[in-house]
Amino acid sequence: MNDLSKGAAWMQGRIVPITEAGLNVTDWGVTHSDIGYDVVPVWKGGFFRLEAYLDRFMASIRALRMEIGQDRDSVAAILHQMVAASGLRDSYVAMVAARGRNPVPGSRDPRDCDNHFYAWCVPYVHIVKPDAAERGTSVWIAKSVRRIPKDSVDPTVKNYHWGDFTSGLFEAKENGFETTLLLDHAGNVAEGPGFNLFAVFGDRVVTPDAGVLHGITRRTVLEMADARGMDTECCPLPLEECLAADELFLSSSGGGVIPVARLDQTYFSNASAGPVARQLRADYFDWLQQDRFRTEIMY
Amino acid sequence: MNDLSKGAAWMQGRIVPITEAGLNVTDWGVTHSDIGYDVVPVWKGGFFRLEAYLDRFMASIRALRMEIGQDRDSVAAILHQMVAASGLRDSYVAMVAARGRNPVPGSRDPRDCDNHFYAWCVPYVHIVKPDAAERGTSVWIAKSVRRIPKDSVDPTVKNYHWGDFTSGLFEAKENGFETTLLLDHAGNVAEGPGFNLFAVFGDRVVTPDAGVLHGITRRTVLEMADARGMDTECCPLPLEECLAADELFLSSSGGGVIPVARLDQTYFSNASAGPVARQLRADYFDWLQQDRFRTEIMY
Repeated sequence: MNDLSKGAAWMQGRIVPITEAGLNVTDWGVTHSDIGYDVVPVWKGGFFRLEAYLDRFMASIRALRMEIGQDRDSVAAILHQMVAASGLRDSYVAMVAARGRNPVPGSRDPRDCDNHFYAWCVPYVHIVKPDAAERGTSVWIAKSVRRIPKDSVDPTVKNYHWGDFTSGLFEAKENGFETTLLLDHAGNVAEGPGFNLFAVFGDRVVTPDAGVLHGITRRTVLEMADARGMDTECCPLPLEECLAADELFLSSSGGGVIPVARLDQTYFSNASAGPVARQLRADYFDWLQQDRFRTEIMY
Repeated sequence: MNDLSKGAAWMQGRIVPITEAGLNVTDWGVTHSDIGYDVVPVWKGGFFRLEAYLDRFMASIRALRMEIGQDRDSVAAILHQMVAASGLRDSYVAMVAARGRNPVPGSRDPRDCDNHFYAWCVPYVHIVKPDAAERGTSVWIAKSVRRIPKDSVDPTVKNYHWGDFTSGLFEAKENGFETTLLLDHAGNVAEGPGFNLFAVFGDRVVTPDAGVLHGITRRTVLEMADARGMDTECCPLPLEECLAADELFLSSSGGGVIPVARLDQTYFSNASAGPVARQLRADYFDWLQQDRFRTEIMY
């Protein structure tokens, strides 16, 4: 009996338990981290904004010049089939395009590789534990690293180049913080492992415009803030401005809107979750369940 | 019958054909490219400078704060056993430390992961085909990307963050060049996919000092040049200086010393392999067979 409740994967047309899903050690997806991926949340039995995640994934594949033998519709069908088989009703669902192995002996030409698609799903992931998120989380500013710049690796093509994030996470954990925020080489706020950052100034919410993933949750936050009558702005956010904000919060497909009580040595909202962040967090869990954004899964 | 002649891997204590060696799709080695690795060449049945490669690999593991359950000696024993089983007498041998899966549900803490070791070997890889290397290869200067800076991901810890290299390789191949060279953000020469670069000025050989892998073949070149009575220097190398060199060549564990006939729009050594590069290339294939550097494999 295959137990898929801890996670399932779709590998070359077969659905297997997550523990049996392997990528060959010589696949450029491993040896060159040559992968484009996306992650769509499933909440109470339905995908959230599946179309938006699929759009971004297909754009990543085009940017990476891969041919994965699947189109947008067949990727959607695979995700449906896999999540239904797993039985997971709250899930973190990954769709992945990998460069593949190079079958031409001695070739170092990326155009020779056998690109391929796979997918996997596990129980829903919170990038910050829900109780910490409710109280307002703590975010360490990474000291030893700056975010990989966009003219080295394009952050809008969702990728697994996380060495900088992992260095920051080690620093954060060793200093007792939940997660880490990276700056860019100009000293502006960039992003953290799995999230975008927002700053609130009065009735204005601001998030960095460049050098970051254009998160679907980031977009959702901009729409939710707009629906609440707030002004929204995507622009460079110098660290000093960020530290002077009324409130801060993170956005992530792994947990939605996550209030920040502390950024490094600076406390916000009386070291708790601020009112705007709490409102938007509640809005997000509401929007997750609105029909207009949902694609129900037939289990 | 397991055919290991196309490659073998050591996975969790078992030697398997390379095609059966998989890394779990949720291993941080895949999802965060959280891997330190090294590659040692085997030439005519013996490892070349095995001690130097092992030293660097163990240093990478320490830098990444991994505990792989193997020490230097057991890694060496595994490599011996695996290559002997494969029967390969000229081989590209990879030793890999991966962060592993995180067994703590919901944890994003890298310290919780189950770090592990694996290894694999395939027939010897030439990063530039030998006939092209003999004639002098062609190197494209990447236009769309700069090398990931050292304060984002440390290039002296050999890693799989190759997105910038792959972008450069696409440009190179589409412009009819063999490989690509990346510049750093200051406009200095950095490195390319799998190689360091050297410039020759009279009887002086120069290679970049920072923001690059400290290649074992790079070290070997410095020693060979010294043994030939040449001056050697590791220092920043601005592109303009590089273009004014008498000769250029690449160094790589995948092919040794590779003369450069053309760097982007500039030709060197009458569009062929220069005399210093040819001499050092011959020296390298000689040194590969010298007892002082070799560890013979018992097949």
